[in-house]
Amino acid sequence: MSRVVYVNGEYLAEEDAKVSVFDRGFLFADGIYEVTTVFDGKLVDFNSHIIRLKRSLDEIDMKPACSNEELLNIHRQLVNKNNLDEGFVYLQVTRGVADRDFLYPDDKTPTTLVVFTQKKAIIKQPLIERGAKIITVEDLRWGRRDVKTIQLLFSSMAKMQAKSEGVDDAWFVSDGMINEGTSNNAFILTQDNVIVTRHLSNEILHGITRVAVLKCAKALNLTVEERPFTIEEAQKAKEAFVSSSTLCICPVIEIDGVTIGDGKPGAVSQQIREAYLIEAHKSAV
Amino acid sequence: MSRVVYVNGEYLAEEDAKVSVFDRGFLFADGIYEVTTVFDGKLVDFNSHIIRLKRSLDEIDMKPACSNEELLNIHRQLVNKNNLDEGFVYLQVTRGVADRDFLYPDDKTPTTLVVFTQKKAIIKQPLIERGAKIITVEDLRWGRRDVKTIQLLFSSMAKMQAKSEGVDDAWFVSDGMINEGTSNNAFILTQDNVIVTRHLSNEILHGITRVAVLKCAKALNLTVEERPFTIEEAQKAKEAFVSSSTLCICPVIEIDGVTIGDGKPGAVSQQIREAYLIEAHKSAV
Repeated sequence: MSRVVYVNGEYLAEEDAKVSVFDRGFLFADGIYEVTTVFDGKLVDFNSHIIRLKRSLDEIDMKPACSNEELLNIHRQLVNKNNLDEGFVYLQVTRGVADRDFLYPDDKTPTTLVVFTQKKAIIKQPLIERGAKIITVEDLRWGRRDVKTIQLLFSSMAKMQAKSEGVDDAWFVSDGMINEGTSNNAFILTQDNVIVTRHLSNEILHGITRVAVLKCAKALNLTVEERPFTIEEAQKAKEAFVSSSTLCICPVIEIDGVTIGDGKPGAVSQQIREAYLIEAHKSAV
Repeated sequence: MSRVVYVNGEYLAEEDAKVSVFDRGFLFADGIYEVTTVFDGKLVDFNSHIIRLKRSLDEIDMKPACSNEELLNIHRQLVNKNNLDEGFVYLQVTRGVADRDFLYPDDKTPTTLVVFTQKKAIIKQPLIERGAKIITVEDLRWGRRDVKTIQLLFSSMAKMQAKSEGVDDAWFVSDGMINEGTSNNAFILTQDNVIVTRHLSNEILHGITRVAVLKCAKALNLTVEERPFTIEEAQKAKEAFVSSSTLCICPVIEIDGVTIGDGKPGAVSQQIREAYLIEAHKSAV
């Protein structure tokens, strides 16, 4: 099976979708990405992804690759050309092709834009039905995790560490406080029915699904606290879960070998997931 | 001018030197690099680069792309094909091409190997003759700077910040102590004629030129201390300099607006540079 992939204005067969070895995305990880979920062939939270993309680009002084209308058109074309019903559209912008130099190239250097689709079950995922087991790992990522760059090696290493320890994922910890998951935001529901997730800062990604979760939690009359929390507080929680574009909401049932609640996906996590899916379907474009 | 570039077994014209957009080097910064200086068409410290490459690959569980003999052959072929007299050979290994997933692909996935040359004046560089002005910047890079990955965006950002402030480079600082430069190791010569540079750890790159500098310093009967030092200690130093493969030894004449010594390249820095160049020439292959 060969997908159609968008590279700098062209729709190409997957095997022809290439970039120069001098692309700064390849040599310096000098690029930004976004992942937009697709349900029923429609884009979930597209506008929020585009707003976050712009913010990330601004933070590293990179120009947009094209207009938002063109980006939407590319996303839709790829969903159609690849008959994508459920999965995601991945977008990456890099600072373009230049001789290797730590200094950015001339402002006139065209940015590189790559967009592709990937099929993936979003609504029915076995992991979500059984709940994820996670370990905690000291957070060694760079200090600007609010900027969605392609410097993802440490997240990848942590996910591999989780796999080698027989679990599903890892949560990153700084000074004993939980930041977030490898590619998701982390939440707990305390024994007093308070939803706790780390406050926004440079320490964590400003998750789009995170915002939607907090909205759903409030609609369910749950108190929300945005603050740091410890591994121990998480282990004593009634429920735990993560949010991301492609997992939506995924329950967490074990943290560093300690079972959360009764070891099954929590009721509130599931309620939030259902409320989120209804909203996401409604607003998809 | 088009260079010949090596990509996965082929010698290609620069404009044809491409990698898949699904290469993990492009999507996850999942790659390691080395830069070997070329003087008079010969490779400086080639073996040390290959040993460090192997160590970096091991640290992120990545396989070597080919044997060391093949790597040497590729380097020599490129130096010849591109008539490179002075400059560097850049080598990058990535974890290869796979569907986007934080988990590493199957062990059988071939790694990607890209090697190219870049012309650059090494012996005579105006910056080295006048000395570099630097600023200090809080170190926001990831926590494993001893592993030479392509996650270089923050170094690039710091170099741009230096440029925007009218200086040449930046030194990274953690908790008030200097780690190293954006792409070089940092040294001072104290008023008591002691060469000080940060000790090896995960905080800094284990520079190959750094080792050679310490050897030259000892041969010049200078005392060497490998330990952290503050910005203030550096500003009060008699001399300051950096080491890297392509700069070799470059004097530093200003730190955060404070002139070092008399504001001219220091005599000891120059002696070390000369001693280094003699050794590097002798051992080049």
